[in-house]
Amino acid sequence: AESNADSISPVKNAVLVDGVFLNGPILDSRAGQQFVMEALPLIVEEAIQKATDVNEKVCEWQPPELLKHRLDLELRERGETHQQILERCREVIRYSVKTGHPRFFNQLYAGLDPYSLVGRFITEALNPSVYTYEVSPVFVLIEESVLKKMIEFVGWEEGGDGMFSPGETLNSYWNVQLIRLIVCLVIKLGKASKVLSGRPLLCYHAHVTVFFSSQSHYSVRKAAAFLGIGTRNVYVVPADDRGKMIPEELEKQIERAKSEGAVPFMVSATAGTTVLGAFDPLEDIADICERNGLWFHVDACWGGSALLSRKYCHLLKGIQRANSVAWNPHKMLMAGLQCCAFLVRDKTGLLQRCHSAQASYLFQPDKFYDIGYDTGDKSIQCSRKPDAFKFWLMWKAIGTQGLEERVNRALALSKYLAEEVKNREGFRLLLEPEYANVCFWYVPPSLRKTPEGPEFWKKLHEVSLEVGRISTSLLLIFLLVVGLRSGRDLKISDLHDH
Amino acid sequence: AESNADSISPVKNAVLVDGVFLNGPILDSRAGQQFVMEALPLIVEEAIQKATDVNEKVCEWQPPELLKHRLDLELRERGETHQQILERCREVIRYSVKTGHPRFFNQLYAGLDPYSLVGRFITEALNPSVYTYEVSPVFVLIEESVLKKMIEFVGWEEGGDGMFSPGETLNSYWNVQLIRLIVCLVIKLGKASKVLSGRPLLCYHAHVTVFFSSQSHYSVRKAAAFLGIGTRNVYVVPADDRGKMIPEELEKQIERAKSEGAVPFMVSATAGTTVLGAFDPLEDIADICERNGLWFHVDACWGGSALLSRKYCHLLKGIQRANSVAWNPHKMLMAGLQCCAFLVRDKTGLLQRCHSAQASYLFQPDKFYDIGYDTGDKSIQCSRKPDAFKFWLMWKAIGTQGLEERVNRALALSKYLAEEVKNREGFRLLLEPEYANVCFWYVPPSLRKTPEGPEFWKKLHEVSLEVGRISTSLLLIFLLVVGLRSGRDLKISDLHDH
Repeated sequence: AESNADSISPVKNAVLVDGVFLNGPILDSRAGQQFVMEALPLIVEEAIQKATDVNEKVCEWQPPELLKHRLDLELRERGETHQQILERCREVIRYSVKTGHPRFFNQLYAGLDPYSLVGRFITEALNPSVYTYEVSPVFVLIEESVLKKMIEFVGWEEGGDGMFSPGETLNSYWNVQLIRLIVCLVIKLGKASKVLSGRPLLCYHAHVTVFFSSQSHYSVRKAAAFLGIGTRNVYVVPADDRGKMIPEELEKQIERAKSEGAVPFMVSATAGTTVLGAFDPLEDIADICERNGLWFHVDACWGGSALLSRKYCHLLKGIQRANSVAWNPHKMLMAGLQCCAFLVRDKTGLLQRCHSAQASYLFQPDKFYDIGYDTGDKSIQCSRKPDAFKFWLMWKAIGTQGLEERVNRALALSKYLAEEVKNREGFRLLLEPEYANVCFWYVPPSLRKTPEGPEFWKKLHEVSLEVGRISTSLLLIFLLVVGLRSGRDLKISDLHDH
Repeated sequence: AESNADSISPVKNAVLVDGVFLNGPILDSRAGQQFVMEALPLIVEEAIQKATDVNEKVCEWQPPELLKHRLDLELRERGETHQQILERCREVIRYSVKTGHPRFFNQLYAGLDPYSLVGRFITEALNPSVYTYEVSPVFVLIEESVLKKMIEFVGWEEGGDGMFSPGETLNSYWNVQLIRLIVCLVIKLGKASKVLSGRPLLCYHAHVTVFFSSQSHYSVRKAAAFLGIGTRNVYVVPADDRGKMIPEELEKQIERAKSEGAVPFMVSATAGTTVLGAFDPLEDIADICERNGLWFHVDACWGGSALLSRKYCHLLKGIQRANSVAWNPHKMLMAGLQCCAFLVRDKTGLLQRCHSAQASYLFQPDKFYDIGYDTGDKSIQCSRKPDAFKFWLMWKAIGTQGLEERVNRALALSKYLAEEVKNREGFRLLLEPEYANVCFWYVPPSLRKTPEGPEFWKKLHEVSLEVGRISTSLLLIFLLVVGLRSGRDLKISDLHDH
């Protein structure tokens, strides 16, 4: 069979340079579009319809060595026919985990939203990079509009600034961004200077200190390590039984840091922790930050979506006092990976001052339109995907009302699940859910008569692993270990069906 | 009209919790799929067919304020109907720049590849995150396979390691990754220690020094600023007239750094600079790095694709001696944004040691398969899009042969363009192209009789801006300022057609 690479024949009056015919496009665009047309029904059927059908499998599981063998991964000198490539697409979908499946439970996923998906198809086809208005006029404006609306929900009455980014995220990796921001400013300025709320910034080699709750996301350690803050300058503040930062302990740590010659700089509170879904007491923390002149960051990657619910926005009371907020609509709201916003209350161009490198070949100051729209210079990246668009399109389609319903439904489901867990033999609720995380133990029949000593707990810890080992789907390991995170149609009986 | 949010009616035997009906899916999946089906023909026609049709416009240009008015960006309480959302999609496409258009010239783009596009549609629908084998079995293996093949082309006979990342890139932002890597190690280890090729690493506060060519990408400054290297520790090495780093100057800078008490650490050479497309003399630089015990990084983001061409791989002679290489297949090879690989020759798990945070809830050491496949812990991110897949699918479809043809064709086109520029009145070639960048001046009739004094050059510099101002498309500003970067069917007469 002819490979696709061979299928282009030169046109007449061909110009030959170095053995290459230059006339005509490099791709046979008719054949290429034909391939796309053939692939679309396959994608719709396999990656959308079946992948979200509760009667289909979440994943056709294969261990690595076997899967390698089945897929024929090797890249060769010659290309393959359209039929062969379509077959490869089918196999790739078949052996992939269907993250939009109603029985796939994971902290990042709540289902497949069709409006967001269409938005993503459009941006993949247009393949834009959001760095200047002239190459991404529509997406620059849409990002501005989405950020403005998110800032409204945070409650900064005088507005703010922000940026979407492809997100080094799982739950709160956006903290990194903030530390970067501060470190950058410090380094760029290079000496004591007043920029943030009037307090002095110290030169980089000073002992700059940040405070996090013991329940905050693991990205904190990564951030501290690779940005040169140094893990020894991260003070961990104990949390209470419900996973909330204890304000009195924060004050103690600030005093301790000062007594050790450190310079307290920032507190990162969490709204919706990774495991328990706990919300730190933001008002109390804001008070402490104000008294001590500290930057107040709220990692609301997971919990931020509650801002859209009139019923649950009280969980984030005090967030309007934050200096910066991270919020990922790709989780509970279903905007699709990645969709991560980083918002700052500052309106003096802090992001720009931090990240700008004034690349003269992109960001010419003498353009013929308002270069305030060339937002790329605010980002730590240069080329950037238009992640705000899919969220915007979805928001347009279902309205704030529809987003609110998603939040309310996820939390109603978690209440329902918690009740079912309490009432069912062999299940033990860890604590009443505050958010969409439901944490519980599954106690297998063999352990139900065992007294609660060290032996009991050791064995119980082994259960979640064992569940993963015997399960044909990935459902249980996530459900048991991480807790329910998504707004799905879950029946507790599913636990026994698999 | 009913909004989409209202269209879900509760099923019978509904369970009501907190005013929410829990039965049934949160989305009406039939209506959602119906919407996708209605949107697909629009996407194919507007964002694929017309967007790549030479007879259509590259962009329907509107200044920011007018475009804002036309698009109705505001997000409201209530959602809109499918018809309204489809109309919005049409408008978004209409006013967006068609980056796959044969007349769109930009340093990141070479056209729209149908195989890559289908790969991207599949991954958007499956919405995976490549952090562990159990959530992304297929994409973990495919990434491994692509990296292995790229490493083969770099020429590391004993293999290596690597990672795809959503790329803080324009041309070489991957440098950042390397500096991070080194800084991380230094910080993590916290004290003098031997890890890289047996030479001592210094604790973070030491004066660690990196060397870049004056022609290297602007991301270098960003990297140095936000990673705490400090711009004063970046030594800039002069380049020759063709934009190539001068080895003798590199040696001088190393001596200067040593005499200033700094610790030379890394040299970053460029294979394919941003503006001139110059290739640094890699063999000579490798010699210097070996003599001085320096880490040798090659930023081949733009030039790396020449490795696939038997005719042009000589441009990168010596790259096999690099310790690390950055290479972006999203540029000349058309894999689509983002597709950025970072490769290291090290096989001792350097990436893992740098970035690992051992998040226990994801990367459990006691899993039931080889956890070597849980590659997420190597990355600085946690959730990560499967950027290797689109490249793999395209490679399968057209073969190494097809990729090689793309490179050869782009370089043949640049030769052709250079000849045309030389032969045409009013155009002046800056220098013979070494790669796909063709740099030239357009001298307007009014200047053709002006003698070449300061006045002449001042006016000539104003021309590229003026061309942007009067052009109805974005073609000329890029073509004149940045040079031809893509493998298109360009006729020099296009310059006058617009």
